Amino acid sequence: MVKAIEALFNPRTIAIIGASRNPQKPGYQVLYNLKQKYKGKIYPVNPNADKILGLKAYPSILDIPSEVDLAVIVIPAEKVPKVAEECGRKGVKTLIVISGGFKEVGPKGAELEEQLVSIVKKYGMRLLGPNVVGVYVPKTGVNTTFINPERQGFPDHGPIAFLSQSGAFGIAILDWATMRGIGISKFVSLGNKADIDEADLLEYLIEDKDTRVITMYIEGVEKGKRFMEALKKTTPIKPVIALKSGRTEAGSRAIASHTGSLAGADKVYDAVFKQTGVIRAYGMEELFDMATALALQPPARGNRVAILTVGGGSGVMATDACIELGLNVPKLSESTEEKLRKILLPIASPHNPVDVTGSARDEHLVESVEVLMKSGEVDIIIWIPYFMVPGISEQLVEKFIERVRKVNKELDTPIPVIGAATGGTYTWKQASKAEKLGIPMYISVERAAKAAWALYKYGAWLKKNNVFNDYIEQFRKIIGY
Amino acid sequence: MVKAIEALFNPRTIAIIGASRNPQKPGYQVLYNLKQKYKGKIYPVNPNADKILGLKAYPSILDIPSEVDLAVIVIPAEKVPKVAEECGRKGVKTLIVISGGFKEVGPKGAELEEQLVSIVKKYGMRLLGPNVVGVYVPKTGVNTTFINPERQGFPDHGPIAFLSQSGAFGIAILDWATMRGIGISKFVSLGNKADIDEADLLEYLIEDKDTRVITMYIEGVEKGKRFMEALKKTTPIKPVIALKSGRTEAGSRAIASHTGSLAGADKVYDAVFKQTGVIRAYGMEELFDMATALALQPPARGNRVAILTVGGGSGVMATDACIELGLNVPKLSESTEEKLRKILLPIASPHNPVDVTGSARDEHLVESVEVLMKSGEVDIIIWIPYFMVPGISEQLVEKFIERVRKVNKELDTPIPVIGAATGGTYTWKQASKAEKLGIPMYISVERAAKAAWALYKYGAWLKKNNVFNDYIEQFRKIIGY
Repeated sequence: MVKAIEALFNPRTIAIIGASRNPQKPGYQVLYNLKQKYKGKIYPVNPNADKILGLKAYPSILDIPSEVDLAVIVIPAEKVPKVAEECGRKGVKTLIVISGGFKEVGPKGAELEEQLVSIVKKYGMRLLGPNVVGVYVPKTGVNTTFINPERQGFPDHGPIAFLSQSGAFGIAILDWATMRGIGISKFVSLGNKADIDEADLLEYLIEDKDTRVITMYIEGVEKGKRFMEALKKTTPIKPVIALKSGRTEAGSRAIASHTGSLAGADKVYDAVFKQTGVIRAYGMEELFDMATALALQPPARGNRVAILTVGGGSGVMATDACIELGLNVPKLSESTEEKLRKILLPIASPHNPVDVTGSARDEHLVESVEVLMKSGEVDIIIWIPYFMVPGISEQLVEKFIERVRKVNKELDTPIPVIGAATGGTYTWKQASKAEKLGIPMYISVERAAKAAWALYKYGAWLKKNNVFNDYIEQFRKIIGY
Repeated sequence: MVKAIEALFNPRTIAIIGASRNPQKPGYQVLYNLKQKYKGKIYPVNPNADKILGLKAYPSILDIPSEVDLAVIVIPAEKVPKVAEECGRKGVKTLIVISGGFKEVGPKGAELEEQLVSIVKKYGMRLLGPNVVGVYVPKTGVNTTFINPERQGFPDHGPIAFLSQSGAFGIAILDWATMRGIGISKFVSLGNKADIDEADLLEYLIEDKDTRVITMYIEGVEKGKRFMEALKKTTPIKPVIALKSGRTEAGSRAIASHTGSLAGADKVYDAVFKQTGVIRAYGMEELFDMATALALQPPARGNRVAILTVGGGSGVMATDACIELGLNVPKLSESTEEKLRKILLPIASPHNPVDVTGSARDEHLVESVEVLMKSGEVDIIIWIPYFMVPGISEQLVEKFIERVRKVNKELDTPIPVIGAATGGTYTWKQASKAEKLGIPMYISVERAAKAAWALYKYGAWLKKNNVFNDYIEQFRKIIGY
């Protein structure tokens, strides 16, 4: 199995069956996108062309002179079984069937899909799809999507895997993630899931060194038991965050028209997620806000949040948001407040939320975060820097993060730090720098609070499974403190 | 009163008392920012300078040769009363006291503040502040903020007024709004509210032709009855959306350290908002998401939403989000579905959510929206265009919006249309174009759903007050259909 999935993400050779010279056709665009960064050998298959996009084309997969790890199929549904048969004879490991026209269109398509699956099984191949956008792996350059890069961004390599039952939504997320600066390890569009499904991919991703957090968009899961078992194995090792739609009756009805999945009662999914430690997201921004926090920061040992802010109003709003999520924003001890008082300006507030005020300078934030991290009184820090105020320098981010790393190296349990930066271009230049250096930043305090909640939630799950310290030990190696 | 507020937003002349030649001081930056776009006469007041930033400086306000409508005071708190007295003698209409060091710092500051207020009253002046960032009015160029434009964006003129009890948060919002392309009619930082408060500004904004929607960030309101009365007068004419912090006990405690406002029990505010038709936001993105919808689109006559999507998954998620907010995503009638079936591709779904699929072309969206708007079966449209798919042209936005406007001109009650566009750079180039042409677009379906909810909620309030048709009539004049 692992080999078949490996062939999906890191094949030595790829055949594109249905490669086209016509830029209006997906068979052209798939080849075009794949050519951009993939370093392995690409074989276009098309009986009516000698060359496509500068590559020699072959009449059939059987004519290709070398082994083929992965075949991407982009031809009308009714012709797919014959070609799959040829792939089997050729010894192809894994198929991606992009073509639609199978189970999702009705009984006739379902029959075709069954036929396809039996061929795949006969030859011991594995199949992603049909009816998929395919995969995108920045590190290996494997990209079987068919949207032109003029209209579509492809994110850089990063620690988050994304599995999507909706191809279009997957594409939109890749595009959005590029703009937002979120890196992706592997993207997989699941389509009809005739063979490879979430469980298969989870089993692969548990071991995948490039993936720290697994995110997914799900409409419905057929093999529930197998899914649960895969989740149980995964979540003590890597966080899984799921956006499951069809939460409402009307939503479920819409799923029936979309992927034809049996959405099932939402409370069943909810129970499964709770039992298996999956963190549930209720929207796409939330999904990736939480994933970014878990990718960049260690999970929290508890729910006590310290808020360190340059703007008083933001401190109040962050407090509200934390409390409403079940986090705690505790009063600090006399001695901690005293230490802060010595650092801060007289007009600042050493209570939690700690308000350094708009008159603050870099050192007020840098010294305060150390006091808070070392206090033993809080488990998570949310900092709200207001990069535009005059006393804050352009080097704050570097200074602050250096200090956070230094203190975390000294502590038995590292304290996660995340930030909120409401603002525009200059602010986000600074905030993006912070993210590159490992502190996730959010445009609003409400979103930062939700990300903090995910760090708490996942920490609690690890503790429940008695693997909190193991996870932290691993995470420290990755993160370097 | 109106004249005094007018002097805040549209003064003929402004004196900056405490104008400075030192770029590190707020008294420099206020003058610098004001000079950028303000066309009236500016008088720097500084006894130790002849010229500041190329403008002749005066030793005191009494030395200025012409009338002064607005005096902006940026000097240490203890010197403010004397200067206020001079402003009174000079016949200044309105003061903005930026300086901090008043009520917010303790009893001594409170005494100073009382002294200031009595001087203001004695001379029949009005006072914004103390302890404020001031005002920003793109149309007149009045800008008394003191953040350097290198670090801070200032949004263009637009239909949304924003009142903020937190100056720093206000600044951050202006900066964010610039990046997000949200236009502002008036921004006011309220500070200690020693004189001018929310009620005064609401009374002004009711009549203000440049303001269509009023947004506010509040920590606590002292004159509750007056506030309520002002709200009651405003909301049948213009929507008011409030972000009130201190919703939790810990949040209220944080307010005490911040503005010193009596936050009061949150349920009291909640009751006031319900009674007066104020729409409550629970975060800054939500605040402006809803404001943008109400600024650009008419309120909805009911809660029935049609979803028109290129991506099936997004349709499902939008349905969930709408239902969870109490909106309805009704099944369409046989005859409407039949009309849609004739327009759409065979693989498309004519049920609500209407899924035109990723193979759609422009006309599928353009023709469908007309059918939905004319059906009489829905009150709001959420369209989800997926600009990246190959069949959608770069002219879709223009074609779609032209059709929406045409149909709305024919209908007795216009149907509001808003959109969701999850994606990156290309998508947002198209989405921004849509916003400029009057259809607000959101990065996620969840946020679009919340904006749709606001259109429903405000429509229901107008109906309850028997002014729905009056409002629509006015709105049609502004919007041109």
